[in-house]
Amino acid sequence: MSENGSLRRGRPGYDQQGILEVAVAAFNQFGYDATSMGVLADRLGLSKSAIYHHFASKDEILERALDEALSGLEGVLDEADAARGRAADRLDHVLRGAVHVLVDKLPYVTLLLRVRGNTEVERSALERRRAFDRRVMALVTEARDEGSLRSDIDPRIVERLLFGMINSIVEWYRPGGKEDADRLADDVIAVALDGLRMPTSNRIEELLG
Amino acid sequence: MSENGSLRRGRPGYDQQGILEVAVAAFNQFGYDATSMGVLADRLGLSKSAIYHHFASKDEILERALDEALSGLEGVLDEADAARGRAADRLDHVLRGAVHVLVDKLPYVTLLLRVRGNTEVERSALERRRAFDRRVMALVTEARDEGSLRSDIDPRIVERLLFGMINSIVEWYRPGGKEDADRLADDVIAVALDGLRMPTSNRIEELLG
Repeated sequence: MSENGSLRRGRPGYDQQGILEVAVAAFNQFGYDATSMGVLADRLGLSKSAIYHHFASKDEILERALDEALSGLEGVLDEADAARGRAADRLDHVLRGAVHVLVDKLPYVTLLLRVRGNTEVERSALERRRAFDRRVMALVTEARDEGSLRSDIDPRIVERLLFGMINSIVEWYRPGGKEDADRLADDVIAVALDGLRMPTSNRIEELLG
Repeated sequence: MSENGSLRRGRPGYDQQGILEVAVAAFNQFGYDATSMGVLADRLGLSKSAIYHHFASKDEILERALDEALSGLEGVLDEADAARGRAADRLDHVLRGAVHVLVDKLPYVTLLLRVRGNTEVERSALERRRAFDRRVMALVTEARDEGSLRSDIDPRIVERLLFGMINSIVEWYRPGGKEDADRLADDVIAVALDGLRMPTSNRIEELLG
Protein backbone atom coordinates (compact mmCIF):
# COMPACT_ATOMS: atom_id res chain seq x y z
CA MET A 1 0.00 0.00 0.00
CA SER A 2 2.60 2.51 1.09
CA GLU A 3 4.99 1.20 -1.57
CA ASN A 4 2.28 1.64 -4.22
CA GLY A 5 1.49 5.05 -2.82
CA SER A 6 5.05 6.23 -3.06
CA LEU A 7 5.43 4.83 -6.56
CA ARG A 8 2.30 6.65 -7.65
CA ARG A 9 3.68 9.97 -6.53
CA GLY A 10 5.98 10.00 -9.51
CA ARG A 11 4.25 7.95 -12.23
CA PRO A 12 1.68 5.19 -12.30
CA GLY A 13 3.14 2.26 -10.43
CA TYR A 14 3.17 -1.10 -12.15
CA ASP A 15 3.84 -4.34 -10.40
CA GLN A 16 4.76 -7.44 -12.41
CA GLN A 17 1.09 -8.28 -13.05
CA GLY A 18 0.35 -4.75 -14.24
CA ILE A 19 3.23 -4.83 -16.72
CA LEU A 20 2.03 -8.23 -17.91
CA GLU A 21 -1.48 -6.93 -18.62
CA VAL A 22 -0.28 -3.99 -20.66
CA ALA A 23 2.21 -6.18 -22.55
CA VAL A 24 -0.43 -8.80 -23.43
CA ALA A 25 -2.77 -6.09 -24.73
CA ALA A 26 0.06 -4.78 -26.93
CA PHE A 27 1.02 -8.28 -28.17
CA ASN A 28 -2.62 -8.92 -29.13
CA GLN A 29 -2.94 -5.57 -30.87
CA PHE A 30 0.35 -5.39 -32.79
CA GLY A 31 1.64 -8.96 -32.72
CA TYR A 32 4.39 -10.28 -30.49
CA ASP A 33 7.21 -9.78 -32.99
CA ALA A 34 6.17 -6.22 -33.79
CA THR A 35 6.06 -5.21 -30.10
CA SER A 36 9.57 -4.26 -28.97
CA MET A 37 10.60 -3.61 -25.37
CA GLY A 38 10.85 0.05 -26.43
CA VAL A 39 7.20 0.07 -27.50
CA LEU A 40 6.23 -1.54 -24.19
CA ALA A 41 8.25 1.00 -22.22
CA ASP A 42 6.47 3.84 -24.07
CA ARG A 43 3.05 2.36 -23.35
CA LEU A 44 3.85 1.88 -19.68
CA GLY A 45 5.56 5.23 -19.27
CA LEU A 46 8.51 3.35 -17.79
CA SER A 47 12.14 3.02 -18.80
CA LYS A 48 13.19 -0.27 -20.36
CA SER A 49 15.39 -0.94 -17.33
CA ALA A 50 12.31 -0.60 -15.08
CA ILE A 51 10.69 -3.40 -17.11
CA TYR A 52 13.88 -5.49 -16.91
CA HIS A 53 13.61 -5.15 -13.14
CA HIS A 54 10.50 -7.40 -13.41
CA PHE A 55 11.20 -9.53 -16.48
CA ALA A 56 14.52 -10.72 -17.83
CA SER A 57 13.34 -10.49 -21.45
CA LYS A 58 10.34 -10.03 -23.75
CA ASP A 59 10.36 -13.81 -24.08
CA GLU A 60 9.88 -14.14 -20.34
CA ILE A 61 6.85 -11.82 -20.48
CA LEU A 62 5.37 -14.06 -23.18
CA GLU A 63 6.13 -17.16 -21.12
CA ARG A 64 4.35 -15.73 -18.07
CA ALA A 65 1.38 -14.62 -20.18
CA LEU A 66 0.96 -18.03 -21.83
CA ASP A 67 1.36 -19.75 -18.47
CA GLU A 68 -1.52 -17.63 -17.14
CA ALA A 69 -3.87 -19.07 -19.78
CA LEU A 70 -2.49 -22.62 -19.64
CA SER A 71 -2.53 -22.86 -15.84
CA GLY A 72 -6.14 -21.74 -15.89
CA LEU A 73 -7.14 -24.47 -18.34
CA GLU A 74 -5.06 -27.16 -16.64
CA GLY A 75 -6.56 -26.13 -13.30
CA VAL A 76 -10.05 -26.92 -14.60
CA LEU A 77 -8.96 -30.37 -15.63
CA ASP A 78 -7.24 -31.03 -12.33
CA GLU A 79 -10.36 -30.04 -10.42
CA ALA A 80 -12.51 -32.20 -12.63
CA ASP A 81 -10.14 -35.12 -12.47
CA ALA A 82 -10.28 -34.99 -8.74
CA ALA A 83 -14.07 -34.95 -8.67
CA ARG A 84 -15.82 -38.27 -8.54
CA GLY A 85 -18.69 -39.22 -10.75
CA ARG A 86 -19.46 -40.10 -14.33
CA ALA A 87 -17.08 -39.05 -17.07
CA ALA A 88 -19.93 -37.25 -18.85
CA ASP A 89 -20.48 -35.05 -15.80
CA ARG A 90 -16.77 -34.35 -15.55
CA LEU A 91 -16.73 -33.41 -19.25
CA ASP A 92 -19.64 -31.06 -18.65
CA HIS A 93 -17.63 -29.51 -15.81
CA VAL A 94 -14.49 -29.16 -17.95
CA LEU A 95 -16.33 -27.47 -20.83
CA ARG A 96 -18.02 -25.00 -18.47
CA GLY A 97 -14.73 -24.39 -16.69
CA ALA A 98 -12.92 -23.74 -19.98
CA VAL A 99 -15.55 -21.12 -20.91
CA HIS A 100 -14.99 -19.43 -17.55
CA VAL A 101 -11.20 -19.39 -17.99
CA LEU A 102 -11.67 -17.92 -21.45
CA VAL A 103 -13.91 -15.14 -20.15
CA ASP A 104 -11.81 -14.43 -17.04
CA LYS A 105 -8.50 -14.46 -18.87
CA LEU A 106 -9.64 -13.34 -22.30
CA PRO A 107 -6.47 -11.48 -23.40
CA TYR A 108 -4.22 -14.32 -22.22
CA VAL A 109 -6.24 -17.02 -23.99
CA THR A 110 -6.42 -14.84 -27.12
CA LEU A 111 -2.62 -14.66 -27.09
CA LEU A 112 -2.32 -18.41 -26.53
CA LEU A 113 -4.58 -19.18 -29.49
CA ARG A 114 -2.35 -17.13 -31.80
CA VAL A 115 0.85 -18.94 -30.88
CA ARG A 116 2.33 -20.69 -33.89
CA GLY A 117 5.49 -22.22 -32.44
CA ASN A 118 8.11 -19.76 -33.69
CA THR A 119 10.21 -19.79 -30.50
CA GLU A 120 11.10 -22.24 -27.76
CA VAL A 121 8.62 -20.55 -25.39
CA GLU A 122 5.87 -20.86 -28.02
CA ARG A 123 6.68 -24.49 -28.77
CA SER A 124 6.58 -25.35 -25.10
CA ALA A 125 3.17 -23.61 -24.77
CA LEU A 126 1.87 -25.56 -27.78
CA GLU A 127 3.06 -28.78 -26.16
CA ARG A 128 1.12 -27.96 -22.99
CA ARG A 129 -1.94 -27.15 -25.09
CA ARG A 130 -1.67 -30.50 -26.86
CA ALA A 131 -1.32 -32.27 -23.52
CA PHE A 132 -4.50 -30.52 -22.36
CA ASP A 133 -6.29 -31.59 -25.56
CA ARG A 134 -5.18 -35.18 -25.05
CA ARG A 135 -6.60 -35.21 -21.52
CA VAL A 136 -9.94 -33.84 -22.72
CA MET A 137 -9.93 -36.42 -25.52
CA ALA A 138 -9.37 -39.17 -22.96
CA LEU A 139 -12.33 -37.84 -21.00
CA VAL A 140 -14.54 -37.87 -24.12
CA THR A 141 -13.46 -41.46 -24.77
CA GLU A 142 -14.24 -42.44 -21.20
CA ALA A 143 -17.67 -40.80 -21.36
CA ARG A 144 -18.38 -42.65 -24.60
CA ASP A 145 -17.24 -45.96 -23.16
CA GLU A 146 -19.41 -45.60 -20.05
CA GLY A 147 -22.40 -45.18 -22.40
CA SER A 148 -23.05 -41.51 -21.68
CA LEU A 149 -22.07 -40.20 -25.11
CA ARG A 150 -23.12 -41.54 -28.47
CA SER A 151 -20.76 -44.20 -29.73
CA ASP A 152 -20.64 -43.23 -33.42
CA ILE A 153 -18.14 -40.47 -32.81
CA ASP A 154 -14.38 -40.13 -33.03
CA PRO A 155 -13.22 -38.60 -29.70
CA ARG A 156 -10.34 -36.83 -31.45
CA ILE A 157 -12.70 -35.02 -33.84
CA VAL A 158 -15.22 -34.30 -31.10
CA GLU A 159 -12.56 -32.76 -28.89
CA ARG A 160 -11.44 -30.51 -31.77
CA LEU A 161 -14.98 -29.44 -32.61
CA LEU A 162 -15.81 -28.73 -28.95
CA PHE A 163 -12.73 -26.60 -28.41
CA GLY A 164 -13.07 -25.02 -31.86
CA MET A 165 -16.44 -23.80 -30.67
CA ILE A 166 -15.22 -22.70 -27.23
CA ASN A 167 -12.09 -20.99 -28.55
CA SER A 168 -14.07 -19.08 -31.18
CA ILE A 169 -15.66 -17.16 -28.33
CA VAL A 170 -12.51 -15.01 -28.06
CA GLU A 171 -13.33 -13.56 -31.49
CA TRP A 172 -16.54 -11.85 -30.43
CA TYR A 173 -16.89 -11.93 -26.65
CA ARG A 174 -16.51 -8.56 -24.95
CA PRO A 175 -16.42 -8.38 -21.15
CA GLY A 176 -19.40 -6.56 -19.71
CA GLY A 177 -21.65 -7.63 -22.57
CA LYS A 178 -25.07 -9.07 -21.83
CA GLU A 179 -23.77 -12.65 -21.88
CA ASP A 180 -22.04 -13.51 -18.64
CA ALA A 181 -19.76 -16.51 -18.35
CA ASP A 182 -22.40 -18.75 -16.72
CA ARG A 183 -24.93 -18.09 -19.45
CA LEU A 184 -22.30 -18.61 -22.14
CA ALA A 185 -21.27 -21.90 -20.53
CA ASP A 186 -24.93 -23.00 -20.54
CA ASP A 187 -25.15 -22.17 -24.25
CA VAL A 188 -22.03 -24.19 -25.03
CA ILE A 189 -23.40 -27.18 -23.12
CA ALA A 190 -26.78 -26.78 -24.85
CA VAL A 191 -25.14 -26.92 -28.26
CA ALA A 192 -22.45 -29.47 -27.55
CA LEU A 193 -23.80 -32.01 -25.11
CA ASP A 194 -27.57 -31.83 -25.16
CA GLY A 195 -28.00 -30.76 -28.77
CA LEU A 196 -30.18 -28.05 -30.17
CA ARG A 197 -32.69 -30.27 -31.85
CA MET A 198 -35.77 -31.42 -29.97
CA PRO A 199 -35.75 -35.19 -30.39
CA THR A 200 -38.50 -36.52 -32.63
CA SER A 201 -40.76 -39.17 -31.14
CA ASN A 202 -39.09 -41.73 -33.45
CA ARG A 203 -35.73 -40.88 -31.99
CA ILE A 204 -37.11 -41.10 -28.45
CA GLU A 205 -38.58 -44.54 -29.15
CA GLU A 206 -35.25 -45.60 -30.62
CA LEU A 207 -33.50 -44.44 -27.45
CA LEU A 208 -36.05 -46.08 -25.17
CA GLY A 209 -35.97 -49.29 -27.20
CA MET B 1 -5.58 -27.87 -74.86
CA SER B 2 -3.37 -26.64 -77.68
CA GLU B 3 -3.13 -23.23 -76.05
CA ASN B 4 -2.06 -24.88 -72.81
CA GLY B 5 0.31 -27.09 -74.72
CA SER B 6 2.00 -24.19 -76.43
CA LEU B 7 2.25 -22.24 -73.19
CA ARG B 8 3.83 -25.22 -71.49
CA ARG B 9 6.56 -25.42 -74.10
CA GLY B 10 8.20 -22.39 -72.54
CA ARG B 11 7.09 -22.31 -68.88
CA PRO B 12 4.21 -23.68 -66.90
CA GLY B 13 1.02 -22.08 -68.19
CA TYR B 14 -1.28 -20.43 -65.67
CA ASP B 15 -4.79 -19.35 -66.42
CA GLN B 16 -6.56 -16.90 -64.11
CA GLN B 17 -7.65 -19.71 -61.77
CA GLY B 18 -4.13 -21.10 -61.57
CA ILE B 19 -2.69 -17.72 -60.64
CA LEU B 20 -5.44 -17.33 -58.05
CA GLU B 21 -4.56 -20.64 -56.39
CA VAL B 22 -0.88 -19.84 -56.10
CA ALA B 23 -1.64 -16.33 -54.84
CA VAL B 24 -4.04 -17.57 -52.15
CA ALA B 25 -1.48 -20.11 -50.93
CA ALA B 26 1.09 -17.30 -50.66
CA PHE B 27 -1.35 -14.94 -48.89
CA ASN B 28 -2.13 -17.67 -46.36
CA GLN B 29 1.53 -18.46 -45.81
CA PHE B 30 3.05 -14.96 -45.60
CA GLY B 31 0.03 -12.73 -45.05
CA TYR B 32 -1.61 -10.54 -47.69
CA ASP B 33 0.36 -7.39 -46.91
CA ALA B 34 3.69 -9.18 -46.92
CA THR B 35 3.03 -10.79 -50.32
CA SER B 36 4.02 -8.34 -53.06
CA MET B 37 3.26 -8.77 -56.77
CA GLY B 38 7.01 -9.36 -57.14
CA VAL B 39 6.87 -12.29 -54.70
CA LEU B 40 3.89 -13.69 -56.60
CA ALA B 41 5.66 -13.32 -59.93
CA ASP B 42 8.66 -15.22 -58.53
CA ARG B 43 6.47 -18.02 -57.23
CA LEU B 44 4.64 -18.34 -60.52
CA GLY B 45 7.74 -18.01 -62.66
CA LEU B 46 5.94 -15.26 -64.55
CA SER B 47 6.68 -11.61 -65.11
CA LYS B 48 4.59 -9.11 -63.18
CA SER B 49 3.06 -7.92 -66.45
CA ALA B 50 1.91 -11.48 -67.18
CA ILE B 51 -0.01 -11.40 -63.88
CA TYR B 52 -1.42 -7.96 -64.72
CA HIS B 53 -2.74 -9.50 -67.92
CA HIS B 54 -5.16 -11.48 -65.69
CA PHE B 55 -5.65 -9.18 -62.68
CA ALA B 56 -5.60 -5.38 -62.54
CA SER B 57 -4.06 -5.39 -59.04
CA LYS B 58 -3.21 -7.47 -56.00
CA ASP B 59 -6.43 -6.15 -54.50
CA GLU B 60 -8.38 -7.67 -57.39
CA ILE B 61 -6.75 -11.06 -56.73
CA LEU B 62 -7.87 -10.80 -53.10
CA GLU B 63 -11.36 -9.78 -54.17
CA ARG B 64 -11.66 -12.81 -56.48
CA ALA B 65 -10.29 -15.13 -53.80
CA LEU B 66 -12.71 -13.91 -51.13
CA ASP B 67 -15.58 -14.08 -53.61
CA GLU B 68 -14.74 -17.74 -54.22
CA ALA B 69 -15.31 -18.54 -50.52
CA LEU B 70 -18.31 -16.23 -50.07
CA SER B 71 -20.12 -17.40 -53.22
CA GLY B 72 -19.71 -20.96 -52.04
CA LEU B 73 -21.28 -20.21 -48.67
CA GLU B 74 -24.04 -18.04 -50.12
CA GLY B 75 -24.78 -20.78 -52.65
CA VAL B 76 -25.51 -23.24 -49.84
CA LEU B 77 -27.98 -20.84 -48.31
CA ASP B 78 -29.67 -20.14 -51.64
CA GLU B 79 -30.09 -23.86 -52.24
CA ALA B 80 -31.45 -24.37 -48.75
CA ASP B 81 -33.76 -21.38 -48.95
CA ALA B 82 -35.19 -22.72 -52.15
CA ALA B 83 -35.85 -26.14 -50.65
CA ARG B 84 -39.18 -26.72 -48.99
CA GLY B 85 -39.52 -28.26 -45.58
CA ARG B 86 -38.97 -27.52 -41.94
CA ALA B 87 -36.49 -24.84 -40.94
CA ALA B 88 -34.60 -27.39 -38.81
CA ASP B 89 -34.01 -29.56 -41.87
CA ARG B 90 -32.87 -26.55 -43.86
CA LEU B 91 -30.48 -25.63 -41.03
CA ASP B 92 -29.12 -29.18 -41.07
CA HIS B 93 -28.59 -28.77 -44.82
CA VAL B 94 -26.86 -25.39 -44.43
CA LEU B 95 -24.44 -26.65 -41.74
CA ARG B 96 -23.52 -29.70 -43.83
CA GLY B 97 -23.17 -27.52 -46.92
CA ALA B 98 -20.91 -25.08 -45.10
CA VAL B 99 -18.62 -27.95 -44.02
CA HIS B 100 -18.43 -29.06 -47.66
CA VAL B 101 -17.57 -25.56 -48.88
CA LEU B 102 -14.89 -25.33 -46.21
CA VAL B 103 -13.33 -28.63 -47.26
CA ASP B 104 -13.66 -27.99 -51.02
CA LYS B 105 -12.37 -24.42 -50.83
CA LEU B 106 -10.11 -24.73 -47.80
CA PRO B 107 -7.46 -22.12 -48.78
CA TYR B 108 -10.13 -19.59 -49.83
CA VAL B 109 -12.12 -19.97 -46.61
CA THR B 110 -8.89 -19.81 -44.57
CA LEU B 111 -8.10 -16.49 -46.25
CA LEU B 112 -11.64 -15.21 -45.65
CA LEU B 113 -11.45 -16.04 -41.93
CA ARG B 114 -8.28 -13.96 -41.57
CA VAL B 115 -9.75 -10.83 -43.10
CA ARG B 116 -9.80 -7.96 -40.60
CA GLY B 117 -11.26 -5.13 -42.68
CA ASN B 118 -8.09 -3.17 -43.50
CA THR B 119 -9.11 -2.31 -47.07
CA GLU B 120 -12.30 -1.61 -48.99
CA VAL B 121 -12.19 -5.12 -50.49
CA GLU B 122 -11.81 -6.64 -47.02
CA ARG B 123 -14.61 -4.54 -45.56
CA SER B 124 -16.93 -5.53 -48.37
CA ALA B 125 -16.09 -9.22 -47.77
CA LEU B 126 -16.79 -8.80 -44.04
CA GLU B 127 -20.14 -7.22 -44.88
CA ARG B 128 -21.07 -10.23 -47.05
CA ARG B 129 -19.98 -12.56 -44.24
CA ARG B 130 -22.16 -10.69 -41.78
CA ALA B 131 -25.10 -10.88 -44.18
CA PHE B 132 -24.55 -14.64 -44.41
CA ASP B 133 -24.46 -14.88 -40.60
CA ARG B 134 -27.71 -12.92 -40.35
CA ARG B 135 -29.45 -15.29 -42.76
CA VAL B 136 -28.28 -18.33 -40.77
CA MET B 137 -29.40 -16.63 -37.58
CA ALA B 138 -32.84 -16.06 -39.10
CA LEU B 139 -32.98 -19.75 -39.96
CA VAL B 140 -32.06 -20.71 -36.37
CA THR B 141 -34.82 -18.40 -35.13
CA GLU B 142 -37.33 -19.92 -37.54
CA ALA B 143 -36.37 -23.45 -36.49
CA ARG B 144 -36.77 -22.48 -32.86
CA ASP B 145 -40.14 -20.86 -33.48
CA GLU B 146 -41.48 -23.90 -35.33
CA GLY B 147 -40.62 -25.94 -32.22
CA SER B 148 -37.76 -27.95 -33.74
CA LEU B 149 -34.99 -26.40 -31.67
CA ARG B 150 -34.95 -25.82 -27.93
CA SER B 151 -36.38 -22.47 -26.99
CA ASP B 152 -33.97 -21.50 -24.21
CA ILE B 153 -31.33 -20.35 -26.67
CA ASP B 154 -30.30 -17.02 -28.15
CA PRO B 155 -30.14 -17.52 -31.94
CA ARG B 156 -27.34 -14.95 -32.24
CA ILE B 157 -25.13 -16.86 -29.78
CA VAL B 158 -26.05 -20.22 -31.29
CA GLU B 159 -25.15 -19.03 -34.78
CA ARG B 160 -21.77 -17.83 -33.52
CA LEU B 161 -21.05 -21.05 -31.65
CA LEU B 162 -22.08 -23.19 -34.64
CA PHE B 163 -19.88 -21.30 -37.08
CA GLY B 164 -17.12 -21.00 -34.52
CA MET B 165 -17.07 -24.78 -34.50
CA ILE B 166 -17.33 -25.14 -38.28
CA ASN B 167 -14.72 -22.46 -39.02
CA SER B 168 -12.25 -24.00 -36.57
CA ILE B 169 -11.99 -26.95 -38.95
CA VAL B 170 -9.65 -24.89 -41.18
CA GLU B 171 -7.08 -25.00 -38.41
CA TRP B 172 -6.55 -28.73 -38.47
CA TYR B 173 -8.24 -30.25 -41.52
CA ARG B 174 -5.89 -31.50 -44.20
CA PRO B 175 -7.32 -32.69 -47.52
CA GLY B 176 -6.78 -36.39 -48.08
CA GLY B 177 -6.91 -37.16 -44.37
CA LYS B 178 -9.08 -39.98 -43.10
CA GLU B 179 -12.02 -37.67 -42.45
CA ASP B 180 -13.86 -36.88 -45.67
CA ALA B 181 -16.27 -33.99 -45.90
CA ASP B 182 -19.39 -36.17 -45.48
CA ARG B 183 -18.08 -37.75 -42.33
CA LEU B 184 -16.99 -34.40 -40.96
CA ALA B 185 -20.44 -32.93 -41.70
CA ASP B 186 -22.02 -35.86 -39.82
CA ASP B 187 -19.76 -35.13 -36.84
CA VAL B 188 -20.72 -31.45 -36.83
CA ILE B 189 -24.42 -32.34 -36.92
CA ALA B 190 -23.90 -34.93 -34.18
CA VAL B 191 -22.33 -32.32 -31.92
CA ALA B 192 -24.47 -29.34 -32.82
CA LEU B 193 -27.98 -30.53 -33.53
CA ASP B 194 -28.41 -33.94 -31.99
CA GLY B 195 -26.04 -33.50 -29.08
CA LEU B 196 -23.38 -35.85 -27.86
CA ARG B 197 -25.07 -36.86 -24.66
CA MET B 198 -27.41 -39.82 -24.62
CA PRO B 199 -30.62 -38.48 -23.08
CA THR B 200 -31.34 -39.79 -19.62
CA SER B 201 -34.72 -41.45 -19.09
CA ASN B 202 -35.75 -38.39 -17.01
CA ARG B 203 -35.02 -36.15 -19.92
CA ILE B 204 -36.95 -38.41 -22.28
CA GLU B 205 -39.98 -38.40 -19.98
CA GLU B 206 -39.71 -34.61 -19.77
CA LEU B 207 -39.69 -34.42 -23.57
CA LEU B 208 -42.57 -36.89 -23.96
CA GLY B 209 -44.55 -35.12 -21.27
